[in-house]
Amino acid sequence: MVLSNLKAIFINTSLKSTKEPSNTESLMQEVQKIYKEINVESEMIRLADYNIALGVEEDMGNGDEWPQIYTKVLEADILIIGSPIWLGEKSSLATQAIERLYGSSSKTNEKGQSVFYNKVGGVVVTGNEDGAKHASASILYSLSHMGFVIPPNVDTYWVGEAGPGESYMKAGKDNEFTKGHVRMLAYNTMHLATMLQNTPIPAKGNTME
Amino acid sequence: MVLSNLKAIFINTSLKSTKEPSNTESLMQEVQKIYKEINVESEMIRLADYNIALGVEEDMGNGDEWPQIYTKVLEADILIIGSPIWLGEKSSLATQAIERLYGSSSKTNEKGQSVFYNKVGGVVVTGNEDGAKHASASILYSLSHMGFVIPPNVDTYWVGEAGPGESYMKAGKDNEFTKGHVRMLAYNTMHLATMLQNTPIPAKGNTME
Amino acid sequence: MVLSNLKAIFINTSLKSTKEPSNTESLMQEVQKIYKEINVESEMIRLADYNIALGVEEDMGNGDEWPQIYTKVLEADILIIGSPIWLGEKSSLATQAIERLYGSSSKTNEKGQSVFYNKVGGVVVTGNEDGAKHASASILYSLSHMGFVIPPNVDTYWVGEAGPGESYMKAGKDNEFTKGHVRMLAYNTMHLATMLQNTPIPAKGNTME
Amino acid sequence: MVLSNLKAIFINTSLKSTKEPSNTESLMQEVQKIYKEINVESEMIRLADYNIALGVEEDMGNGDEWPQIYTKVLEADILIIGSPIWLGEKSSLATQAIERLYGSSSKTNEKGQSVFYNKVGGVVVTGNEDGAKHASASILYSLSHMGFVIPPNVDTYWVGEAGPGESYMKAGKDNEFTKGHVRMLAYNTMHLATMLQNTPIPAKGNTME
Repeated sequence: MVLSNLKAIFINTSLKSTKEPSNTESLMQEVQKIYKEINVESEMIRLADYNIALGVEEDMGNGDEWPQIYTKVLEADILIIGSPIWLGEKSSLATQAIERLYGSSSKTNEKGQSVFYNKVGGVVVTGNEDGAKHASASILYSLSHMGFVIPPNVDTYWVGEAGPGESYMKAGKDNEFTKGHVRMLAYNTMHLATMLQNTPIPAKGNTME
Repeated sequence: MVLSNLKAIFINTSLKSTKEPSNTESLMQEVQKIYKEINVESEMIRLADYNIALGVEEDMGNGDEWPQIYTKVLEADILIIGSPIWLGEKSSLATQAIERLYGSSSKTNEKGQSVFYNKVGGVVVTGNEDGAKHASASILYSLSHMGFVIPPNVDTYWVGEAGPGESYMKAGKDNEFTKGHVRMLAYNTMHLATMLQNTPIPAKGNTME
Repeated sequence: MVLSNLKAIFINTSLKSTKEPSNTESLMQEVQKIYKEINVESEMIRLADYNIALGVEEDMGNGDEWPQIYTKVLEADILIIGSPIWLGEKSSLATQAIERLYGSSSKTNEKGQSVFYNKVGGVVVTGNEDGAKHASASILYSLSHMGFVIPPNVDTYWVGEAGPGESYMKAGKDNEFTKGHVRMLAYNTMHLATMLQNTPIPAKGNTME
Repeated sequence: MVLSNLKAIFINTSLKSTKEPSNTESLMQEVQKIYKEINVESEMIRLADYNIALGVEEDMGNGDEWPQIYTKVLEADILIIGSPIWLGEKSSLATQAIERLYGSSSKTNEKGQSVFYNKVGGVVVTGNEDGAKHASASILYSLSHMGFVIPPNVDTYWVGEAGPGESYMKAGKDNEFTKGHVRMLAYNTMHLATMLQNTPIPAKGNTME
């Protein structure tokens, strides 16, 4: 088995555009570093930089820039969604990314499976405090329901103690638990994507009418 | 308006019986201290000490001890459910307490409203890390759906930084955010219970057929 | 006690602008009809008609139209958030409405409580299938955590059987359960808003530093 | 690649013992029928028939019967958890099954990975109404966080229209959406379990210290 040409796309759903630093992106970059070591090509998208229309069509028109993101998702083997936490929930942009992906989930590949089959999903979450598992569960479930494979331990997060406090870039960089999960996310998405590249999911029992 | 005879029941859904100390109970006791100062009578129940049957009937028979807990809920003005966090979720016993309460939620008071009308609900959650808001949202929603009034800021919790770590009794006692929320929970449940004692919810638009 | 001048604001977070009919709005209008009968003044906002900026500041500038919505929330006694369901979750616009409200939740009234104190919250959800309770729990918890009072039974929804199918306007209008909950939502928000107008929550134990 | 000796274990977390029929089990049996056709051996466990102790140790002693369930999980390639819905949530027994699995999730296989690596998880949910996706998301996330692989479309459910109503056995048997998802769950758990049997996840980046 030869590891070849795996591509990952990171969609950071921070509410801030790239004019401002993002804690979530900082943690996603730790995953990127490992991808570089293990020959997984990757690209980081800051969704707030784009004009993403409300709706559940593949292209909502009127300057909607989702189609260019969607094209990148189709070309990737691995999709990692990053989200900050607000009031214990994933961001509105993370919700919107899921809505837009959902708009294409009834499209099929050449075998009649969802276009997202044979792709692998993962999630990265940061927040001052509380909410990472809930945000992760929601995002990973949605990806799985749309056709992605979810490898073990692909929910990487950092949150601080209850209450207001420092963010990941100031307070979380040395957290060993988070570092371990960066590693597991990077390796397990790579391992499963490699398996699926070598052995795609047979089109038996899972095609759409 | 005179504050009179308010009673609170605390149901701690720790997986441990009273043979072992409970972090959740320790935080619940902080609420109890304030109740004592403001003349709210309270009782702490450790649900794991009782034989609580599976099911959604008011009394499942065969030694089911839920009915004695349920009687205390009916006599109380305020119900506080306490839960530890496992894998980002409220405990199985918290889920069971909700199931058992639900089994009586179609019973009515003398006006034809749910028996839980004019009662006030709140929640206390502790965990090593992450999950408090999700557990709180689930419990408070269930109480609200069954007839309880949910005052503002009645979700009091402590969790530590991401990953394994110390629990509330060792690491959370000095958290100012948590202390402030202990105070808000105690006072706001008292404020709303007092209001409802003085002005019960009129039986208009909310009776069951 | 005299019922006087209660105002409700409905924020519909459908992904569609008013150019298109909204199932969620249709169900919200059932609540409005009862409000009309019981002298609660109300206004319907379709959030997708506005330019709502990403972020958690009260005014994000650059043509952000949230401040005019926020002003209406401040003037209202009752806030009802309506949401469609996508993949079992509230809409991205519902998430954004919560984020924007959260951006003002540390502002205080003249007594030092959150500006949302003495206001009452509720939720209306529609979808082809599954997800209403989860969306409701998330929205009601957020409102409660920010200072709103949550009366009993203020989660009104309609969803169809599992799988693709008709929406509320075509298939849900005659659902007796949903109709009963329209009534409970309308009356209980009115009852509690009246109580809070007559007896505001005392500023004891719940002010912000 | 030869499909050989795959074993699935079904854990039904209905609150009822086998003395009573279970709607959830009825839907799980539809999955079993397909497993039979495609040579996956399976066993159905009704968790309410066992004495399952509260706690997060592998064996809580005092007649705890979890260890015999756990042994079956270890021997299986596929774990399907079935749950009814109460108030929009998975059952207390489902929560308890997760707690007990979690108690062993730091045990490792001979390569140093979690003992649940190279196993595949899925979920089956039934209810009168609403809650299936939320229950599924919670269960699948927990399995993924503990080491299971989650294939695409392994959340099979049936729920009826909003409000009280018939259950799966009376009203859901003909639902085409649910039937399609029975098929996808059965085939995709088999496909991924076969892949993992042929190509276990390499012990790189995912071992525990």
